Amino acid sequence: MDGYRIAVIGATGAAGRVLLGIIEERSFPVSSVRLCASERSWGKIITVNGGDVVVEEPTRELLRDVDFLFIAASSGVSRELSPMAVDEGALVIDKSSAFRMDPDVPLVIPEVNGDDMESHHGIIAAPNCSTTPLAMVLKPLNGANNVRRVTVATYQSVSGAGAAAMDELRTQSGQVLAGDQPEPIALPHQIAFNVVPQVESFLDNGYTTEEMKMVAETRKILHEPELAVSATCVRVPVMVSHSEAVHIEFEEAITPDEVRETLAGAPGLKVMDAPESSVYPMPVDAEGRDEVFVGRIRQDQSHPRGVVMWIVTDNLRKGAALNAVQIAEEVLSRELMPAQRG
Amino acid sequence: MDGYRIAVIGATGAAGRVLLGIIEERSFPVSSVRLCASERSWGKIITVNGGDVVVEEPTRELLRDVDFLFIAASSGVSRELSPMAVDEGALVIDKSSAFRMDPDVPLVIPEVNGDDMESHHGIIAAPNCSTTPLAMVLKPLNGANNVRRVTVATYQSVSGAGAAAMDELRTQSGQVLAGDQPEPIALPHQIAFNVVPQVESFLDNGYTTEEMKMVAETRKILHEPELAVSATCVRVPVMVSHSEAVHIEFEEAITPDEVRETLAGAPGLKVMDAPESSVYPMPVDAEGRDEVFVGRIRQDQSHPRGVVMWIVTDNLRKGAALNAVQIAEEVLSRELMPAQRG
Repeated sequence: MDGYRIAVIGATGAAGRVLLGIIEERSFPVSSVRLCASERSWGKIITVNGGDVVVEEPTRELLRDVDFLFIAASSGVSRELSPMAVDEGALVIDKSSAFRMDPDVPLVIPEVNGDDMESHHGIIAAPNCSTTPLAMVLKPLNGANNVRRVTVATYQSVSGAGAAAMDELRTQSGQVLAGDQPEPIALPHQIAFNVVPQVESFLDNGYTTEEMKMVAETRKILHEPELAVSATCVRVPVMVSHSEAVHIEFEEAITPDEVRETLAGAPGLKVMDAPESSVYPMPVDAEGRDEVFVGRIRQDQSHPRGVVMWIVTDNLRKGAALNAVQIAEEVLSRELMPAQRG
Repeated sequence: MDGYRIAVIGATGAAGRVLLGIIEERSFPVSSVRLCASERSWGKIITVNGGDVVVEEPTRELLRDVDFLFIAASSGVSRELSPMAVDEGALVIDKSSAFRMDPDVPLVIPEVNGDDMESHHGIIAAPNCSTTPLAMVLKPLNGANNVRRVTVATYQSVSGAGAAAMDELRTQSGQVLAGDQPEPIALPHQIAFNVVPQVESFLDNGYTTEEMKMVAETRKILHEPELAVSATCVRVPVMVSHSEAVHIEFEEAITPDEVRETLAGAPGLKVMDAPESSVYPMPVDAEGRDEVFVGRIRQDQSHPRGVVMWIVTDNLRKGAALNAVQIAEEVLSRELMPAQRG
């Protein structure tokens, strides 16, 4: 076999396009590519691995000829297509939130909990883009010294809300610079030269769905169902990369140097921490990079066993598309394709 | 007496200009105005209360004819001029950090600790723009239920770094939109479409001076020298208004409703908290307003006696100039002018 038949749902979106690029970059073994999106994109042509691919409607027939189905679309789309794809023998790698908390669906960051994939039933979910970097940092630390509590404030780029939100930031920025009043469409309020403390929609407890995803998904990925986590998720006028200010409380005392050492040895992480030279992670530097960058690691002045840090990741890559492709690679190396498992 | 002889140091800066506007708005009783700034601004003309005032060099002679000296300049400038002004009989209201932690200098937010002014020796300091809103929220809460610990992540506008940083954000935003590479000058890194986890300079403990100001000043203002506080201060591409994501731990359990009620009755605060309608404080709405806005008040999911909230304030007004003018008003109503005290 020369490669696998892949299909991408949401191929024209921000994460979908990055996913196609990563498949090329990493030479993922592909024998055929089908691209799907919502109706307004049908007929569009996208170049993948040097060949032109027409964007089409996702049908059961199309899913029949697919080994890997990557879903970079809404949870509604995933709920409709994923069971159908599993039924047709495909392995679904789902970037949406549709099945993340389903006990029968592994929620996977390969470097953190790749073993959870072994028990899949055709769908493997990838975490939310703000959860992934946090879980990647917490995992090695929790191995060294039990993590007791995590609080986080995010600085999330507009690309997390899709290509329309990126266009909106660009357009609104030009309008504000020209002295015009911008009109919010894709996001709930003006985002240019503003910050909006709302990512997704509100629940009865006063948190947003995004904030509660960070809690529930982190617990599931780390196998720590009781871990105390609280998040404030905020949209900032940045195109790509999510940043997070994180307070972590440990069971035992720990020094910033121990944290730095533990994180420096962990897969997928890069410690970037030389504040005396103004070196720390930032969104513009993380964009296009695969690593989760960690800096500003210091003792929590307000807690004897606490550490504070600053985490930045390209939300479209490790936060979304890269993690999805890495899951597919891991499926292959672990021989977890539905056909292989007979 | 028709009014007071005032002088403003740093009159051409972002906070200085807002201060002059607030003096007009609030009809602060002024008999004469002298304006000073750094050398490159000498000779500039600024209109105050309908009259043109020439920007000049701050000299001892000038200070001799001043009742209120407002300093909206660097701590270096304040260290040079304040003792001289006190010597000449002026009352100094200092927005710089020069004397804030001096035990002989009251550090004042009139709504919070106006009584501290009674013991002044000629200088009254105003807090850092990120400290003021936090202390204003903590004060009434700490009265209701002891505050045990505070952690905060800030989203600070460029105006906190002065007019040059505001110009830089405007210029860089245009450059990025045009596809050009921006050059940082006023700030340590590109700020357009980026966030920078550095406000001011780094100390040996890994915190910035800005972050440690939030700790030390909050303790002094609240008369809580041991209060556990930890901050991460981040610059965001916003022109005016600082935002803060705040976790507060209390001695006794407290509900979000109790917090809302306590804050709603506190001076200078405005609760703006209807998340179901996407109503919460934001920088663009707070700009030009006097209040400290508080929203997203909710139980801390990670702590049994914790509450999380989101605070936004115009950093040039209540964070700086308005608080300075309010101090002057309070000096008058308490009859604390050096001459009055004999």
